[in-house]
Amino acid sequence: MTDLLLTNVRPFGGAATDILIRNGRIESIGRGQSAAGMPVEDGGGAIAIPGLVEAHAHLDKSMWGMGWQVHQAGPSLEDKISNERRLRRELNIDPERQSARQVALAASHGTTAIRSHVDIDTDQKLWCFEGVSATRERFRDVMDIEIVAFPQSGLMIRPGTLELMDEALANGADVVGGLDPCGIDRDPKGQLDAIFTLSQKHGKPIDIHLHEPDELGAFSMEMIIERTRALGLRGKVTISHAFCLGMTDRARAAALTEQLAREDIALATTAPASRPVPAAMEIRQAGIRLCAGSDGIRDTWSPYGNLDMLERALLIGLRYNFRQDADVEYALHICTQGGADVMELRDYGLREGAFADIVLLDTETVTEAVVARPKRKLVLKHGKPVARDGQALFDVE
Amino acid sequence: MTDLLLTNVRPFGGAATDILIRNGRIESIGRGQSAAGMPVEDGGGAIAIPGLVEAHAHLDKSMWGMGWQVHQAGPSLEDKISNERRLRRELNIDPERQSARQVALAASHGTTAIRSHVDIDTDQKLWCFEGVSATRERFRDVMDIEIVAFPQSGLMIRPGTLELMDEALANGADVVGGLDPCGIDRDPKGQLDAIFTLSQKHGKPIDIHLHEPDELGAFSMEMIIERTRALGLRGKVTISHAFCLGMTDRARAAALTEQLAREDIALATTAPASRPVPAAMEIRQAGIRLCAGSDGIRDTWSPYGNLDMLERALLIGLRYNFRQDADVEYALHICTQGGADVMELRDYGLREGAFADIVLLDTETVTEAVVARPKRKLVLKHGKPVARDGQALFDVE
Repeated sequence: MTDLLLTNVRPFGGAATDILIRNGRIESIGRGQSAAGMPVEDGGGAIAIPGLVEAHAHLDKSMWGMGWQVHQAGPSLEDKISNERRLRRELNIDPERQSARQVALAASHGTTAIRSHVDIDTDQKLWCFEGVSATRERFRDVMDIEIVAFPQSGLMIRPGTLELMDEALANGADVVGGLDPCGIDRDPKGQLDAIFTLSQKHGKPIDIHLHEPDELGAFSMEMIIERTRALGLRGKVTISHAFCLGMTDRARAAALTEQLAREDIALATTAPASRPVPAAMEIRQAGIRLCAGSDGIRDTWSPYGNLDMLERALLIGLRYNFRQDADVEYALHICTQGGADVMELRDYGLREGAFADIVLLDTETVTEAVVARPKRKLVLKHGKPVARDGQALFDVE
Repeated sequence: MTDLLLTNVRPFGGAATDILIRNGRIESIGRGQSAAGMPVEDGGGAIAIPGLVEAHAHLDKSMWGMGWQVHQAGPSLEDKISNERRLRRELNIDPERQSARQVALAASHGTTAIRSHVDIDTDQKLWCFEGVSATRERFRDVMDIEIVAFPQSGLMIRPGTLELMDEALANGADVVGGLDPCGIDRDPKGQLDAIFTLSQKHGKPIDIHLHEPDELGAFSMEMIIERTRALGLRGKVTISHAFCLGMTDRARAAALTEQLAREDIALATTAPASRPVPAAMEIRQAGIRLCAGSDGIRDTWSPYGNLDMLERALLIGLRYNFRQDADVEYALHICTQGGADVMELRDYGLREGAFADIVLLDTETVTEAVVARPKRKLVLKHGKPVARDGQALFDVE
């Protein structure tokens, strides 16, 4: 495990100090620490923040590094799902190779933990799960990766998927996934009962994609809340996207928010510019854990994305029209501590005792870092440098 | 005037070719051109696009390079306007110095033409106008700058402003500005009559900021349309922002769109993630000129922005959920030809006879350029290199 004295850094843009790292953890923070014989890294007055947390990714899907693929899929969710199933094999979007590239890309941007949904369906079977699992093993000292067994092509409409998810969860998947129980599966009771049963069987948390808008999404959300309460899964469920909380009936959204808070159900957002979004400040006031993610990166769904969670903080700021520095700092909080809270990362943060997952940024303030998105000067994972000046310090094919 | 042979470039990502530039203009496009004694620039297979057009900027406002200023202004438009008037002198946000910095920043990102609104009020008087005018003169060979005489603090509520605008227009301002005739001036008839009269007096076009939402904005928009029609100003009016066209009553918005098209009234957008926006594809189908801009850059209003119109194309794509390559290319069109159409730039584009305002981008496709926003490899203004590898080739203080 790594020992390192990191000198002259400014935690969250505050006063300059030193960080003493021993055995991959922050032993102490303060000036004038004795570190005889330890390697020393001069932070040069850079801002230090804890490692960025990518809390909603799809590491198995990206075509990064495969040459440009023209996007022509139709507009509906079903168009994109079936287009992807077809292209995955046609183009050989190999989940192991592609997830490894994503790990290098994420590390280069200062991300030190990722929750990745991984497609499981009766065509791919466990190909995606096994590929991302191999990548997780290979980069264990670079990135914490949590795998969600995700029924991208539907669960009830695709018999055999549930058994495959069960197998993935028995073999190391960390989280039970779900997807639009009305919109995709056309059987909300069926899907939700199935995934909550899986969660209980394996003792693992749940993360459900919920794109359904307005009252339809609210209905599915209520069914999720009901099961969370009935099964005592308080604090163990995440709803991703939750566009329905951005509906125009604010009183209805506020009532749902209150119920989410009561069951400590977390939310994940990508802060999409083109969709209604949960009201971040109401979510915050209600004490609901809120994290963020990049979603798909240059995949068959869309050409966008770069796995840069500092840029995601910018997009959060723009989406919510955060203009005061304190609010922009909250956008970054969502992309750091918010993700750690949802992934239940133990020992996270810029504090004594925590793992030394640290990112250095050469700007004057945290808000400037979010709006300017400088190349990450240095990224430490458990005290070990994994990226410098925007480049990962390890190779992938 | 500049002569140059630009070899091995791919116009809009098409087949590689050469571009022969003589006297600052594109003389011919094609392989095997004879250019004895001319300087040669090897494009290395990069994509060539015409210069980016920044069609809604505020060059006089930015605090770029002044050290970080914490943002604490209140939420209303009036809060931000009065906060700015106060800080401008307190912090010495010198319009000449700051606009020069903006020109260098814009050029570094491949922008070759800018329409800038410039604040005119009874506190600043013509300080901002004169500063940006001086910058325009200084950088005449680097950037086309169009100046809008803009009553940021209101026209009717601030007697004396109209006379100052009149003076600016007599002294080189190109466009008559306006601002929320209901929301700010509380006198739509008064403001609109005043600025349309100025337009007629000086024979200059109009560009009106219209943030007013929903039916209020629709009302102001109708008053603008009525005056455009009555005074025969077809093709001479731009409405910036036009949030009201994103209102939920789509039939109402469609009827307004039809009237805008009839009077050839152009629209400018920043594609804000947090506001309703005109439906870009409906605007396009109606044949309405649509351009884009960065709006304020790291000013007293907000910490955001970098004057990168390739990034603006990305934000347009995200705002409108453009996922197919052809649609992302349209986002870039808005930031190039769209701006040229609104600014009525003569001889614009990648075609023989046009001015050689050219940007080289090292990506495989145009869509990849928009999503990846690479450093601009080379920027030519009238054939002359003004930026290379993301750096302006000229100095400002």
